[in-house]
Amino acid sequence: MESNKTRYEKGLRTVKEMVPNETFQMMQKMQEVDPDFWNMIISFGFGDVYARNGLSLAQREIVTLTTLITQGAFDQLEVHIRAALNVGLTQAEIKEIIIQCAAYTGFPKATQAMQIAGKIFSE
Amino acid sequence: MESNKTRYEKGLRTVKEMVPNETFQMMQKMQEVDPDFWNMIISFGFGDVYARNGLSLAQREIVTLTTLITQGAFDQLEVHIRAALNVGLTQAEIKEIIIQCAAYTGFPKATQAMQIAGKIFSE
Amino acid sequence: MESNKTRYEKGLRTVKEMVPNETFQMMQKMQEVDPDFWNMIISFGFGDVYARNGLSLAQREIVTLTTLITQGAFDQLEVHIRAALNVGLTQAEIKEIIIQCAAYTGFPKATQAMQIAGKIFSE
Amino acid sequence: MESNKTRYEKGLRTVKEMVPNETFQMMQKMQEVDPDFWNMIISFGFGDVYARNGLSLAQREIVTLTTLITQGAFDQLEVHIRAALNVGLTQAEIKEIIIQCAAYTGFPKATQAMQIAGKIFSE
Amino acid sequence: MESNKTRYEKGLRTVKEMVPNETFQMMQKMQEVDPDFWNMIISFGFGDVYARNGLSLAQREIVTLTTLITQGAFDQLEVHIRAALNVGLTQAEIKEIIIQCAAYTGFPKATQAMQIAGKIFSE
Amino acid sequence: MESNKTRYEKGLRTVKEMVPNETFQMMQKMQEVDPDFWNMIISFGFGDVYARNGLSLAQREIVTLTTLITQGAFDQLEVHIRAALNVGLTQAEIKEIIIQCAAYTGFPKATQAMQIAGKIFSE
Repeated sequence: MESNKTRYEKGLRTVKEMVPNETFQMMQKMQEVDPDFWNMIISFGFGDVYARNGLSLAQREIVTLTTLITQGAFDQLEVHIRAALNVGLTQAEIKEIIIQCAAYTGFPKATQAMQIAGKIFSE
Repeated sequence: MESNKTRYEKGLRTVKEMVPNETFQMMQKMQEVDPDFWNMIISFGFGDVYARNGLSLAQREIVTLTTLITQGAFDQLEVHIRAALNVGLTQAEIKEIIIQCAAYTGFPKATQAMQIAGKIFSE
Repeated sequence: MESNKTRYEKGLRTVKEMVPNETFQMMQKMQEVDPDFWNMIISFGFGDVYARNGLSLAQREIVTLTTLITQGAFDQLEVHIRAALNVGLTQAEIKEIIIQCAAYTGFPKATQAMQIAGKIFSE
Repeated sequence: MESNKTRYEKGLRTVKEMVPNETFQMMQKMQEVDPDFWNMIISFGFGDVYARNGLSLAQREIVTLTTLITQGAFDQLEVHIRAALNVGLTQAEIKEIIIQCAAYTGFPKATQAMQIAGKIFSE
Repeated sequence: MESNKTRYEKGLRTVKEMVPNETFQMMQKMQEVDPDFWNMIISFGFGDVYARNGLSLAQREIVTLTTLITQGAFDQLEVHIRAALNVGLTQAEIKEIIIQCAAYTGFPKATQAMQIAGKIFSE
Repeated sequence: MESNKTRYEKGLRTVKEMVPNETFQMMQKMQEVDPDFWNMIISFGFGDVYARNGLSLAQREIVTLTTLITQGAFDQLEVHIRAALNVGLTQAEIKEIIIQCAAYTGFPKATQAMQIAGKIFSE
């Protein structure tokens, strides 16, 4: 039976595969704010969920981008647009996800997401 | 330049490709409630958005299922779980989408979605 | 300076002007569940807010219908569609409000609202 | 039957009637980010929806302000407070809409909206 | 280091302490729908989160009731009103939580919550 | 029967007991934007709701922090983290509330709340 150490290590491998190194450094500041919460993010979020089989990381990022746009969690969107590019979604696909969201979440949230994507893509 | 007639016809072809016939019959009742609104659903939603290139219908349904779960729009979820199966997502993939949502929308919405999926899959 | 008795009485007059009598009977069951909460609904909601000048009751119901659709509070929508008709909005205007919402909240919530409106209008 | 060119032109006329010129310039940056999405905003949002009969532009802005406040889409609220003033709502009416929202969305969102309105009105 | 078996067992003890036995039977049906998801609910939700020190179970249920009301997750609210009573909150305290929510989430969600609480309390 | 003057005075006493003086100064700017809305915040929010018996101010702040996190109202969260510390919640308890939220609202909102809490606690 999998130990918590394994969950954490699997999560750490997964998140490092997903986000650019400087994004990881920024995320890791949470470790000082609350080490238990950091542990949950890595062990549960990345170890138990992202590292599962059954969907590719690119498919999982379609879920993540969509839910962030739908809940208006735009502060977290930038990290996951970068992660989405890293795990194989193209700029064109990310823009299609946002357009698909427009019909389901309305234009205000889609517009804000497209502006953020546009800024990242023009870097 | 594309006419509105083309948009409507393209939308109609797309929705009929996506949902089982009896689901379409049920959706179509909207035509009597408000024909203009029905026209928008078909021409804009299915014609302008779903029929676009750039993402497969299966990828678009990942977006749709995720946004419906995130907004708690469970009355519309059943239609789109059936559509998702129709355009090629497997039961296992749909359950993975819901599990991925749990980390991002919290367990209450994921639990409700899983119960609905379970009911449909056991038919 | 206005007393709480005045606020309650003003609220009661306003709500009775707005909703059909049988709807009021149904709402009033809250008085037995929690009399303080009932008092807040009438004194604050209808006395302090709805009874204000500055917007007509019809304009206030445009706000109410829109916010209920946006938050997915469909169990409360029926009461306020009836109230909206009572204070002077037409069926056509209520359907326009829902169509305007489609662009801003996405189609799932607008669709559910239109189905509820359709059911009430066909009575 | 209306062509897409007509829809776009009608939308463009409507948006230019609604927002101050410098707001339009700012919105138009979306055209470079994703021209298809820009087209949808103008053709569908402003051409198919705002340009409809059945509600005045002032009534439509009551819907828009309310849904933006309810969804917490405060980054888009400024544009629409300016548009609301342009199509004939007064400062006093906009503040009444926000007060009406307080009872329906709670005070945090209404407070944030009132702060934004206050800043715009004091310019 | 804690194993996953320990997490699951701790979660199981916690949930059984919290909810009446027939509620647990009902929840457990999830095990057949998706055993991995059930495992996450018990190991993460009840084992990693509810079983933590730092807040009493009664305080945790204040959080849970509030977030369910805020997100409009009324299908899950009944389970947690029963759990809240089980871990020591009184009927009067639960009604106060709902009244406190009214000011923060608006009256529609608070009203729906109060109706559900009223039904449970009158059993 | 309580007059509105009493409600306002009770609300004013309560808010001043809850928030640091400089936070109150900042909140009070609302009085110039819209004096009626300020009156509602104090008389209804703090006078009718917070000043009630039945829950301690610390318990009420558990409700408030949770609903603000759930609705993503992060601009208001800082005021209420300071208020929560003032009425007796510890830093450790506030972090537990956020962790409890993670399971119910998902990690994006909990992460953003924890970052804000971390910033305030490190002052």
